[in-house]
Amino acid sequence: MSHYNAPTRDMRFVINELLGLEKLAELPGLEEAKPDLVDAIIEEAARFSGEVLAPLNRVGDTDGAKLEGETVRATPGFAEAYQQFVESGWNGAAASPEYGGMGLPEVVATAAQEMWQSSNMAWGLCPMLTAGAIEALKHHGSDEQKSLYLEKMVSGQWAGAMDLTEPSAGSDLSVIRTRAVPEGDRYRLFGQKIFITWGEHEMAENIVHLVLARTPDAPAGVKGISLFIVPKYLVNADGSLGERNDYRCTALEHKLGIHGSPTCVMSYGDNEGAIGYLVGEEGKGLAYMFTMMNEARHKVGVQGLAIAERAYQQAVAYARERVQGRPVGHKDANPVPIAHHPDVRRMLMTMRSAIEAMRALAYSAAASMDEARHHPDAERRAHQQSRVDLLIPIVKGWCTELGLEMTSLGVQVHGGMGFIEETGAAQHLRDARIAPIYEGTNGIQANDLVGRKLLRDNGQAMQTLVAELRQNIASLSELTPLAGWQQPLNAGLEQLEAATEWLLSNGAADPVQATANSYHYMMLAGYVTGAGLMARGAFLAQQAIDAGSDDPFYRQKLATAQFYIEQLLPRAKAHAESVSHGSSAVMAIPVDEL
Amino acid sequence: MSHYNAPTRDMRFVINELLGLEKLAELPGLEEAKPDLVDAIIEEAARFSGEVLAPLNRVGDTDGAKLEGETVRATPGFAEAYQQFVESGWNGAAASPEYGGMGLPEVVATAAQEMWQSSNMAWGLCPMLTAGAIEALKHHGSDEQKSLYLEKMVSGQWAGAMDLTEPSAGSDLSVIRTRAVPEGDRYRLFGQKIFITWGEHEMAENIVHLVLARTPDAPAGVKGISLFIVPKYLVNADGSLGERNDYRCTALEHKLGIHGSPTCVMSYGDNEGAIGYLVGEEGKGLAYMFTMMNEARHKVGVQGLAIAERAYQQAVAYARERVQGRPVGHKDANPVPIAHHPDVRRMLMTMRSAIEAMRALAYSAAASMDEARHHPDAERRAHQQSRVDLLIPIVKGWCTELGLEMTSLGVQVHGGMGFIEETGAAQHLRDARIAPIYEGTNGIQANDLVGRKLLRDNGQAMQTLVAELRQNIASLSELTPLAGWQQPLNAGLEQLEAATEWLLSNGAADPVQATANSYHYMMLAGYVTGAGLMARGAFLAQQAIDAGSDDPFYRQKLATAQFYIEQLLPRAKAHAESVSHGSSAVMAIPVDEL
Repeated sequence: MSHYNAPTRDMRFVINELLGLEKLAELPGLEEAKPDLVDAIIEEAARFSGEVLAPLNRVGDTDGAKLEGETVRATPGFAEAYQQFVESGWNGAAASPEYGGMGLPEVVATAAQEMWQSSNMAWGLCPMLTAGAIEALKHHGSDEQKSLYLEKMVSGQWAGAMDLTEPSAGSDLSVIRTRAVPEGDRYRLFGQKIFITWGEHEMAENIVHLVLARTPDAPAGVKGISLFIVPKYLVNADGSLGERNDYRCTALEHKLGIHGSPTCVMSYGDNEGAIGYLVGEEGKGLAYMFTMMNEARHKVGVQGLAIAERAYQQAVAYARERVQGRPVGHKDANPVPIAHHPDVRRMLMTMRSAIEAMRALAYSAAASMDEARHHPDAERRAHQQSRVDLLIPIVKGWCTELGLEMTSLGVQVHGGMGFIEETGAAQHLRDARIAPIYEGTNGIQANDLVGRKLLRDNGQAMQTLVAELRQNIASLSELTPLAGWQQPLNAGLEQLEAATEWLLSNGAADPVQATANSYHYMMLAGYVTGAGLMARGAFLAQQAIDAGSDDPFYRQKLATAQFYIEQLLPRAKAHAESVSHGSSAVMAIPVDEL
Repeated sequence: MSHYNAPTRDMRFVINELLGLEKLAELPGLEEAKPDLVDAIIEEAARFSGEVLAPLNRVGDTDGAKLEGETVRATPGFAEAYQQFVESGWNGAAASPEYGGMGLPEVVATAAQEMWQSSNMAWGLCPMLTAGAIEALKHHGSDEQKSLYLEKMVSGQWAGAMDLTEPSAGSDLSVIRTRAVPEGDRYRLFGQKIFITWGEHEMAENIVHLVLARTPDAPAGVKGISLFIVPKYLVNADGSLGERNDYRCTALEHKLGIHGSPTCVMSYGDNEGAIGYLVGEEGKGLAYMFTMMNEARHKVGVQGLAIAERAYQQAVAYARERVQGRPVGHKDANPVPIAHHPDVRRMLMTMRSAIEAMRALAYSAAASMDEARHHPDAERRAHQQSRVDLLIPIVKGWCTELGLEMTSLGVQVHGGMGFIEETGAAQHLRDARIAPIYEGTNGIQANDLVGRKLLRDNGQAMQTLVAELRQNIASLSELTPLAGWQQPLNAGLEQLEAATEWLLSNGAADPVQATANSYHYMMLAGYVTGAGLMARGAFLAQQAIDAGSDDPFYRQKLATAQFYIEQLLPRAKAHAESVSHGSSAVMAIPVDEL
């Protein structure tokens, strides 16, 4: 069984040094988040994830969720871990103190999130979905709804679930068919939902489903879709639980990975109709969902980072232990652990430097969320919100693509043993495979990036980001050992600028040009932004070394940054070139000749 | 269930037009391989793979090989398919007529091989391993051994297996421990082997194991290893079967993919010792194995191509059928199949152009094998043999890396359904994951390429290849529509040359420099060689169009070549750049600080 030790040193570096927690903690509402307290929280989350969640990761794979009658039986141990999680208050880490949450800055909650997802991605989806439901209710629920549901969802006593997809409505939710028929001040829902993560289970006392459905006279398309609260057990006015609602889980999907997470087919209203309560106004359901989309997508991006970190730790442990072959160039020496072989080292360094860049990017987006919410200056809030909007599809798309690649590298490091399920390396790859798909496929992220985040503001948010990254790079000139890094870093930046320019010139008028290579643009933006953040990290590390620190962490930071520049950043140019070629070759072969 | 239709049009194009079968069929020993006959063979192999093997692919995954007592029960239907395969003479497609084989040119046998592996990779491993054993015996067996074993192995009446790996001896076979104790003119073997593909089954009457083992007084290291024939049933002088030998399969591995292929733990000599017959001389076992390594590695590369093709066909079928979303830029139009969306098209075109480049490369290596064996001119034979030696690690490494990427893209095209096992898309990814690992990990391929194939001849074989590719590109200037392609193609070639130069200058003296980025060099060589072959294909296609052909295939060929140049070739530069940075960042973090 593989262990998991949360990489708290790098987390603290990113939070404290790279992103400046101390200044963040000056913002109104975040005053509690002093570095000492945050350090203690991170250490405690590390302990919980390593000791409680990580040991259940493998059994989640081999003895996944099962449907027994109409009951979903979670993996043995999952419910107990959930109980401990709730009792420790972790479920409300990011939630507002108003509803009993810890009110941690998003940047700190993101570190905790990374740990839950690294240690047990399938399990971690349960609180992750609850958080999404909390967010939607917080923004759009009535006061009555908030007071009835939120506190228990924040504590974790009740879980949440999000019911969007139907067999014919996946990427395109506008064609949803589930019906919601008004009955007094509530509704009766009828229909089928699929791909409902943790849609049914017994880990919490109640499950609050947020369900997208269509009212009888609603117009076709997105404007006819409303959002409903459909609790598993109806909730009495005093908060106590009443009758079981009329829905059931009719099947669990048999999936490639995350076996511990029940993916439910849900049937609503097989009898008298499931009772639902309208959230906000009719016809605004999809818009409400989108308000929480940023956070949900951010969390999926963090999953890409998290699963890569888990795979890295397992690969390093194996490579240090597995003795095979002599050191290169020393035929007569004794056999050594494979971590000594340059190609194995290359794989491990690829994983490590990608992980550090992903962490810097994902946490940086979280810090922007914090400022966007808490900064006293409205202009600054707006600026940070547009930064968040820009970064979200990059975090989701780039980190989940890299998550997939890095878990696959983790398998490769294990050689033949990587292909054997008992080793556990393959599980990470199988688990990681979902992240580029759910919460909006990466194709959708890419189109969102180019269509909504780039073309709509004519590239302004991107130009602001590029300017900031350029500053990061320029500051390297102050530190002699890093001055030479400016050239490749600036080259990457120029490629991003050129591709941006190309899309602004060609994509606005022609949506096929905008979307044919939007994937490449998303990856390009990820590599270059990652590079700018790695450069900033290296700057801080070099400063610390120059100031006399002998913490090996700083030396390692310089090494991973250099490796990133040499081996990951060069991919940016390939993506930039593909963008510049436009759509003609992409669309050249007609669909029926493919 | 997904269907498989062998891509015979592209296969025939590569064999006949790109590689010039007609000239190949003038070589002594290949005279039978006239285009008409070869076309008929390909069509028949296409039928067999589509109708007999492909329908068994899914059940191989869901109801894989099982160990029942000491008997390995193959997937239901596999044995019957094997029987039909044998009766149709396919098992001996590539084998010499001297032993009852068809004696097909390797380039044609490779097309058949691709079809077996596309239609059913797990099943296809059984004849693939037999072919390896045939090859080893043909080169190194005594006349008596050949007459006793070869004919029945060529027919498929008996299967073969290769027993190399032990728990402590994988990539480094020099530390093999299995003992072979002489007893008269034979040996008794004792020891354990792992990862033995199709090491035990009942599909054939007998299984001829080729086992690496160490004789009692043998020196340590590779020179102490000998090769033994260890048949499941001892063979009497008249070829009839005698006693069951003293070995057994003690366990099957529980693997990520290729569930239909039993991966056996083999125990030799639990009782009186397994009877084995020495092949060739003592101490030369590993050298003998290496004589058949080229072909085995080539076949694994073909698996990468094959599984990508299967995934592509399934992704195209789904993308043409799954209706979701409106055409980009037409919000009010009716929903369309997702194949119309540019990003989906990009994924499908990525798969298709990569597949065509892989096919051109793998078949081209096969054509070189044919010339290396059959050309009357010794110099030409030597030239082609060095070409084969150079290309093999590229075919194995590059095609299996792309196989992995393309099967993963196949999953992505399916969206959420791709993650559901019943869809079958995930199986291809799981199956594909082994190919970069077995038959020498891709790290070993990369080191072989740089160490043995590049540095040893001081880059000569590579320079010859580059010169040929340059001619392919130069010829584009004759055809106006393609003249503009020369620039990016030549740029790729220059990157390959520069990286070659760098490795020759820095790698010869420092094996760490040679191997730290050998993976990138292998990938670079793959992309650039693939580009040169795509360019040649485009040249021929344009010529055909200019000559009046209205076969849409040629138009498609131009599109895939253009797409390849725009979207895959740019990756070459990223790999080249990583090579040029050398080993310092790769090795910067000490093993115990990883």
